[in-house]
Amino acid sequence: MGLGEFELIERFFRIPAEDARIARGDVPLGIGDDAALLTAPPGRQLVATLDTLVEGRHFVRGSPPHSIGHRALAVNLSDLAAMGADPAWYLLSLTMPVADEEFLAGFAQGMMSLAQRHGVALVGGNTTRGPLNVAVQAMGTVASGKALTRSGGRAGDLLYVSGTPGDAAAGLKLVLDASAGAALGEAQRNWLLHRFHYPQPRVELGRALVGLASACIDVSDGLAGDAIRLARSSGCGLALDAGRLSLSPALVAFAGESGARRLALTGGEDYELCFTVPPHRAAELAARLESVKCAVTCVGELTAGGDMHLREHGQPLAIDASGHDHFADN
Amino acid sequence: MGLGEFELIERFFRIPAEDARIARGDVPLGIGDDAALLTAPPGRQLVATLDTLVEGRHFVRGSPPHSIGHRALAVNLSDLAAMGADPAWYLLSLTMPVADEEFLAGFAQGMMSLAQRHGVALVGGNTTRGPLNVAVQAMGTVASGKALTRSGGRAGDLLYVSGTPGDAAAGLKLVLDASAGAALGEAQRNWLLHRFHYPQPRVELGRALVGLASACIDVSDGLAGDAIRLARSSGCGLALDAGRLSLSPALVAFAGESGARRLALTGGEDYELCFTVPPHRAAELAARLESVKCAVTCVGELTAGGDMHLREHGQPLAIDASGHDHFADN
Repeated sequence: MGLGEFELIERFFRIPAEDARIARGDVPLGIGDDAALLTAPPGRQLVATLDTLVEGRHFVRGSPPHSIGHRALAVNLSDLAAMGADPAWYLLSLTMPVADEEFLAGFAQGMMSLAQRHGVALVGGNTTRGPLNVAVQAMGTVASGKALTRSGGRAGDLLYVSGTPGDAAAGLKLVLDASAGAALGEAQRNWLLHRFHYPQPRVELGRALVGLASACIDVSDGLAGDAIRLARSSGCGLALDAGRLSLSPALVAFAGESGARRLALTGGEDYELCFTVPPHRAAELAARLESVKCAVTCVGELTAGGDMHLREHGQPLAIDASGHDHFADN
Repeated sequence: MGLGEFELIERFFRIPAEDARIARGDVPLGIGDDAALLTAPPGRQLVATLDTLVEGRHFVRGSPPHSIGHRALAVNLSDLAAMGADPAWYLLSLTMPVADEEFLAGFAQGMMSLAQRHGVALVGGNTTRGPLNVAVQAMGTVASGKALTRSGGRAGDLLYVSGTPGDAAAGLKLVLDASAGAALGEAQRNWLLHRFHYPQPRVELGRALVGLASACIDVSDGLAGDAIRLARSSGCGLALDAGRLSLSPALVAFAGESGARRLALTGGEDYELCFTVPPHRAAELAARLESVKCAVTCVGELTAGGDMHLREHGQPLAIDASGHDHFADN
């Protein structure tokens, strides 16, 4: 006999009572009833997102279950981070072909360990049988009227991106093609794979940007496309100099300087934050970042008018910045 | 070229601005950013649920897209109704093999028309390519401390169920087997099919039960299993007399009296509410129901001790009340 619907989630996602980071005081009723009851703090708005990972689209068959669990939650926490929210709760809908306990153990561990790092509580969801599909809905809160959005940028605002974009796209290439990256050292290969399998949602950075950044978006579809999306939402143009990108040594070793920049601009799966700050507040940004362990790099600025200029050391760069499209590509 | 990820949802789910029922004042930011911003009213708790429909499990291949859209939202609104919540917002994650515009048009219409009936706003989500899978996350609010739960029942409380359970299970049998129900008249056949394809979440009933019902659960897995679940959560036993069930004429015509009761007890897909009321407040229940267009029937009571007794006109009834299990069955 298989495992029961509720038993499955409860068994693998049982939260040790002593883990105070997860036993939040704002969950009067979690898993086990028809719906979860949550207490939103007064003076704050609710931030909600729902994202799904599908086998063959967002991870390849045979991916480590631990990584699938991590990424399914990470992509949602990244959305919350882009709004400057404090993540609080999540729900999981897991569709899988068979109740594979080994898969579930790794999957739950990957998801829970990320949840614990950010103090996010699993408050409900369901499991069902079917082709592997992982939907996670995450909720957080932000001081009323203070959320970061894509649309608040103004011409002249400086454009930043966190971390070293492009790594995850290179990691995905390594996953897809065992013969790729033959010249890479083992540490470099592992770095790129890790950056794909374990993207770190920039929750602390997003929080630090509240009241400072004029606009923000998470980079899931390649920096170029997402920066353009931010600029467009803000009613601005964009001048992005790829020559200023911060590239990891492993990425450069994998793809060369120019190839690395291309992966950073169009690769996707980074889950870094791309944001804008008025130039007169750039020093304030540096001060705030001291308490956040996450480097950011200024790669350009928003401009008046609607033109989107991508350059590399001053030369125009022709790339397809349309980004991922889960229907149009493949 | 296919339709873009965001375009898809926006195109088919565009809300006419003049439709005030959906243009809620508590959605500062809906579809189009990294996450939705929502304003929860003060003094109320948030109620959140996430449920998924999978092709081949919850609907058969070739089901009317309009019905799939309706049901995917209905099962979630039903969860909120079981908590006594006012539904407010929902997010949709739609995985489908191809961007089929005809499917999407019907699907969106079915979902939106139910959403409009209950004043629930679509505030975000995503689409991706893969085997058909519809995850909906719904949120509502309830006065703090007033939510209905499964666990508040006490021995002696009367057990009620809304509507005419069993119809949906019969409707599903008709869907699965074209030769079934040969003796049914056309109106009866349509009634049963409609009850399967268009379950009505008992939102008004749930709301009316706040402050009155001691416990509540929505009936998705068959009345017997769900009533037992409620009794167990309440630390009680159960005495349920199937002879008191309210059965639709169409269901009796389809399955006979005894078969009809069996479908009501074990069939599933009803999305009626099963709830308990202290006996001294039964008159109050009747008064409250006058304003709610939904009949309810008293079918038994909670008992002291943990025994679960299912009877039919006083005789013990042996049925498998374990309910649906999306992994154990099939």
